[in-house]
Amino acid sequence: MLISFLAALPLAVPSPGQIAQAAPAAEWVRIADGDLLVMWIERKDAQPPTRERVVVQLMPTPVVSDWIANIRRLANAHWWDGTSVNRVQDNYVAQWGDATEKKPLPPGLTPTSERQYDMALTALIAAGYQPGKPGDSQARPSDVYADQIGWFRGFPIASDGKRAPQDRRAWPVHCYGSVGVGRNLSPDAGSGAELYAVIGHAPRHLDRNIAVVGRVIDGMDHLSSLPRGTGDLGFYEKPSERIQIVSVRLASDMPVADRPHFAYLSSGGTAWPRYVAARRNRELPFFTRPAGAADVCNIPVPTKEIPSGAE
Amino acid sequence: MLISFLAALPLAVPSPGQIAQAAPAAEWVRIADGDLLVMWIERKDAQPPTRERVVVQLMPTPVVSDWIANIRRLANAHWWDGTSVNRVQDNYVAQWGDATEKKPLPPGLTPTSERQYDMALTALIAAGYQPGKPGDSQARPSDVYADQIGWFRGFPIASDGKRAPQDRRAWPVHCYGSVGVGRNLSPDAGSGAELYAVIGHAPRHLDRNIAVVGRVIDGMDHLSSLPRGTGDLGFYEKPSERIQIVSVRLASDMPVADRPHFAYLSSGGTAWPRYVAARRNRELPFFTRPAGAADVCNIPVPTKEIPSGAE
Repeated sequence: MLISFLAALPLAVPSPGQIAQAAPAAEWVRIADGDLLVMWIERKDAQPPTRERVVVQLMPTPVVSDWIANIRRLANAHWWDGTSVNRVQDNYVAQWGDATEKKPLPPGLTPTSERQYDMALTALIAAGYQPGKPGDSQARPSDVYADQIGWFRGFPIASDGKRAPQDRRAWPVHCYGSVGVGRNLSPDAGSGAELYAVIGHAPRHLDRNIAVVGRVIDGMDHLSSLPRGTGDLGFYEKPSERIQIVSVRLASDMPVADRPHFAYLSSGGTAWPRYVAARRNRELPFFTRPAGAADVCNIPVPTKEIPSGAE
Repeated sequence: MLISFLAALPLAVPSPGQIAQAAPAAEWVRIADGDLLVMWIERKDAQPPTRERVVVQLMPTPVVSDWIANIRRLANAHWWDGTSVNRVQDNYVAQWGDATEKKPLPPGLTPTSERQYDMALTALIAAGYQPGKPGDSQARPSDVYADQIGWFRGFPIASDGKRAPQDRRAWPVHCYGSVGVGRNLSPDAGSGAELYAVIGHAPRHLDRNIAVVGRVIDGMDHLSSLPRGTGDLGFYEKPSERIQIVSVRLASDMPVADRPHFAYLSSGGTAWPRYVAARRNRELPFFTRPAGAADVCNIPVPTKEIPSGAE
């Protein structure tokens, strides 16, 4: 049994995953078809070549809404079809878009501004965000980077807690799997055409320096296991190394029968505080010293795919 | 230039990497040959098959010394030759050892104890550890999981700061690239024959629940980009999926001409506080909102390979 690092034995108490799975059905929130971005990539280096699906949950309104509008427009225009994953930097990001930097963008994109990397905390609270540290009674705060951590419709959000109320801001954070918008130097804030997914330890220093527009909720391993690029910043040096993107679609633009369906665990229900507590204090029999804490990126919001016809 | 997410433009101030590279030569500490574990793995699924080198820096004395003694003995006995990487779980670990769980261990291994996952803080301070928050003047503490963070001979170490002095403990932490010892349920603490490397966001909840025995300092991408296993906990389901280990050697057991040489940046020199400050406050032109903080795993101790003959 030496191999069984995390032994699959009966647990004395439910694991975080078991708590989530046992949550009342009403606490699993169906993700709208218009909030799911479905990307197919092709591995021509595999034997035989494979096509792999990556599904991104887009950030909910009103967070980074200008970029989200652009991403929907780019997907609707099939703009990413035929582009590629061009950069894979270890412990950092896998990045995709137009390697030629010359493909014309579709008309009607919204100009973006770095002022919208964060937003007024009052506005997000009005939309339902609850800053705080649910289930947290420890002496140490819950984050190194921000005063407050909370969750909003499936996403981790940081916010100010010590500034004057009218100056407080809220912003989405970078965790493993987060999807952000590549950009040039300030004041450029990126259109949304160039995207990356985090494939390493949470690069929280990017928070408020880049728009976080979503997170990978399925097929993450198809990005994280890609060969690392050998060029500067992990760019693939040869065009032949690039990973082709077959298509990117909003689920809402797909034929109804082909749409995937996902749900996330609500952070407002009865299961959530128990889930968070279980992430903070992993239990016997494997864990003998509960941590008593978890950073925000070690409390991922659970998701699950809903089989077609199961609704 | 849309593609250039992190533009390779002249920086107004030195980057963390530039600060490290410009450190005085005396602040780069050569890693002893007996502290370098050199593993060669074979990718038979690659076209053509490739052999890739992974180099692990072992934890320095007196941290987790019983496991380190065992690892040296296992390498000296060539015990890992012909074993394999058997488990790759996304955002968690790549794990290697004897998939059959039947290969006899070499004689003379030291019994290990979970009591040695941490050690007396006074003993580590006597060995040179300095707990604290170098360069940190912020209001928020530097860690969610521990009272204090410091570095010891190339490794991040957490420690107690609030308990009675005689009760304070110190322990190595899990970051991206950290190498730990697989084990069965408590009180088993693992021999050191089953090892894993962290390939995702720092699983700090494993701290003090498992022995952290080193970190990957070269070839990390050869582990992090492996195909994820599709079995429970990321185990490869078919024996043919396992990644063969050609050999594992201490550099000190290799022919002198074949030994790799590495150095790490001292945390006791003039460059270190500037390096930490630069990790906490990434600079223009790309970063417009410095974070003012960094968690311990976002302050990796820089290493570099020293070419043969360059000493």
